[in-house]
Amino acid sequence: MPRTKAYVSSVGLTNIGDHWEKSILDLAMDAARAALKGNPKAKPDQIIIGNMFSAVAASQEHLGALVADGLGLTGTPAYKVEAACSSGGTAFNVGYNLVGSGAIDSALVIGVEKMRDLEPEQVSMALAMAESAEYTQFVGATFAALNGLLARYYMEQMDVSRDELSSIPVLDHANAVTAEHAQFRKAITPEVVGRSSMIADPLRLFDCAPVGDGAAAVFLTNNPTHGSKGKMAEVLGGAISTNDFSIYQRDDMLDFKATKNAFKKAMAQAGMTPGKLSLVEIHDAFSVVGALSLEAMGFSKRGRGSKDAKDGKYRRGSELPINTFGGLKARGHPVGATGVYQIAEAYLQLTDQAGKNQVDGARYAATQNIGGVDTTSAVHIFGRAA
Amino acid sequence: MPRTKAYVSSVGLTNIGDHWEKSILDLAMDAARAALKGNPKAKPDQIIIGNMFSAVAASQEHLGALVADGLGLTGTPAYKVEAACSSGGTAFNVGYNLVGSGAIDSALVIGVEKMRDLEPEQVSMALAMAESAEYTQFVGATFAALNGLLARYYMEQMDVSRDELSSIPVLDHANAVTAEHAQFRKAITPEVVGRSSMIADPLRLFDCAPVGDGAAAVFLTNNPTHGSKGKMAEVLGGAISTNDFSIYQRDDMLDFKATKNAFKKAMAQAGMTPGKLSLVEIHDAFSVVGALSLEAMGFSKRGRGSKDAKDGKYRRGSELPINTFGGLKARGHPVGATGVYQIAEAYLQLTDQAGKNQVDGARYAATQNIGGVDTTSAVHIFGRAA
Repeated sequence: MPRTKAYVSSVGLTNIGDHWEKSILDLAMDAARAALKGNPKAKPDQIIIGNMFSAVAASQEHLGALVADGLGLTGTPAYKVEAACSSGGTAFNVGYNLVGSGAIDSALVIGVEKMRDLEPEQVSMALAMAESAEYTQFVGATFAALNGLLARYYMEQMDVSRDELSSIPVLDHANAVTAEHAQFRKAITPEVVGRSSMIADPLRLFDCAPVGDGAAAVFLTNNPTHGSKGKMAEVLGGAISTNDFSIYQRDDMLDFKATKNAFKKAMAQAGMTPGKLSLVEIHDAFSVVGALSLEAMGFSKRGRGSKDAKDGKYRRGSELPINTFGGLKARGHPVGATGVYQIAEAYLQLTDQAGKNQVDGARYAATQNIGGVDTTSAVHIFGRAA
Repeated sequence: MPRTKAYVSSVGLTNIGDHWEKSILDLAMDAARAALKGNPKAKPDQIIIGNMFSAVAASQEHLGALVADGLGLTGTPAYKVEAACSSGGTAFNVGYNLVGSGAIDSALVIGVEKMRDLEPEQVSMALAMAESAEYTQFVGATFAALNGLLARYYMEQMDVSRDELSSIPVLDHANAVTAEHAQFRKAITPEVVGRSSMIADPLRLFDCAPVGDGAAAVFLTNNPTHGSKGKMAEVLGGAISTNDFSIYQRDDMLDFKATKNAFKKAMAQAGMTPGKLSLVEIHDAFSVVGALSLEAMGFSKRGRGSKDAKDGKYRRGSELPINTFGGLKARGHPVGATGVYQIAEAYLQLTDQAGKNQVDGARYAATQNIGGVDTTSAVHIFGRAA
């Protein structure tokens, strides 16, 4: 249990999309330099990289030392943390526990993924590494296929309509219109989602997060004077939990236990009640995953995630805005980087730097980052620093 | 800086070699179960996996959650830490910092690598991911080639003979004869090394660590009652450092700065002087790397690493035994697992469980685990628990 205060004192983001001209190192460096610029006084005690599949996408491992060298921070301990699509949130959790316990004073956490250099079928194979090579991959189930099965079951069990399922992607796209780093800055209607190409029945193209390159970096410190005044967000709690590895093993596929447990622990650590949260960044890699995540954290009742989104509960200006910069569907989902993007976005909100996407008076924020189909979940709670 | 005591209270090892019939999950589980057996009272707060290239060798990522599930420890936070061939030592360092700072109370650290499923040229490509994809890999320099250049330079600069260079491999093989988990349990002569096939001039087959599958696990705890009496080793210090990424960037290729700095920091943390060490496990992925490691830690003077080994300084029964179970050359080097093997071996020595390889009265041990050509180095210091 962390015992000293930990803060995010600056962040750096690249736009998400096609970065043909940049290597994975370039991307990581762009985000890292932007974050370090906000902390001229500070050098990180460690550099922690969240990344899922640089090995297959860039024939590159050893990203930690590579980035340390690139930043002119040779000597600094540096390594990569991987937990599939929750690599970013998990890397942050390691950094938070180290800084929050006083093991180190500061850490630069960088999430980075380069996906666009792969052909589409290679992306499918890379994402499938989140699932068992011996069973799920072996029988040929892609990651989209598994989520398709889940969506079909969810819709049938909970009587969810096509338009209801479309509501989170629609919300995401609406929020991304004014988000500078978002991959898709264009509003869409439920009809657009429902008529888009079939990917894995019933999931269509607009139910699925896109493929993109991107990097995000956050500077973690226990020194409240390291950031600019009013530009610090406090980390109030954070937890990782794991679930039965694959959905076929679970008693109830619709119960996202990893998210439920991680959220519960993180909130307890923060001494926080859900009603206090001003915004939540959820892991909607697929529309159905967004809905089940909202239910697991208790914001929506069972079966009500998409329905509540359709009813306007999670829009900006409503009770509990989610995915304020567009979420995985529209901001984008460069897998190992996503968790760090979410945290950077929470930081921007809590320090009034969210521009046109600002949630007025945001005081507390939660971020939820999943690997696999809720196999790993990393949840963090942030507050406006006093 | 860790503030509470941290102990290794049990370990588990698989033999290193060909495990055609086992998956990477099977291997990790075998080692983990053996380590957990030594701790019937304890459940790990986290599971941390050291692994370099499961993505390319087994089409598998998300090893953390996969292993947690396999062990029946669903719910437990679990993730992979990667820093090329120092992944094992680095994973342990993360666990040590978390347990030693009180962020968590215990961790199961597992190093695992499955290399034999790859064709030899695929192994070369996988290892090359420790180096830059954009430069070193791009120009076609394999990892063995880089170490070959280093060896040529070392031999010429320091007037090191073929027989002198062979001395660490010879020592390793001698120690491995009685090491049950070692890959090659056969003594060799300098002539065997010097006449073996050329790999990357001047490095021959017996200068190079072999390719093998293996897994090692250690249980880290801050609770001195969790292990059996007399079966605890205390972690006295540990540090990671990084160097200029590739050897061509360095002012002095023969100065292993990452190892030098990590060793210095770890020893300072332990409040230890080198003369007190009873044994050292060094990272001799290539004979030349072993020699330069001994020099970087100050056990041998510059240029004297191989020469001192030839003179018998590092043999069992001598002043400072190294690689007491055979080192990377003969125990084996399943890359991401190696750092954890070294730590498990130090534990076995300090708890008088090293069998025929026991260093009598071993009180203090150091382990050194490198990623790249001393690009990352993770050093840990252990003591016999009071």
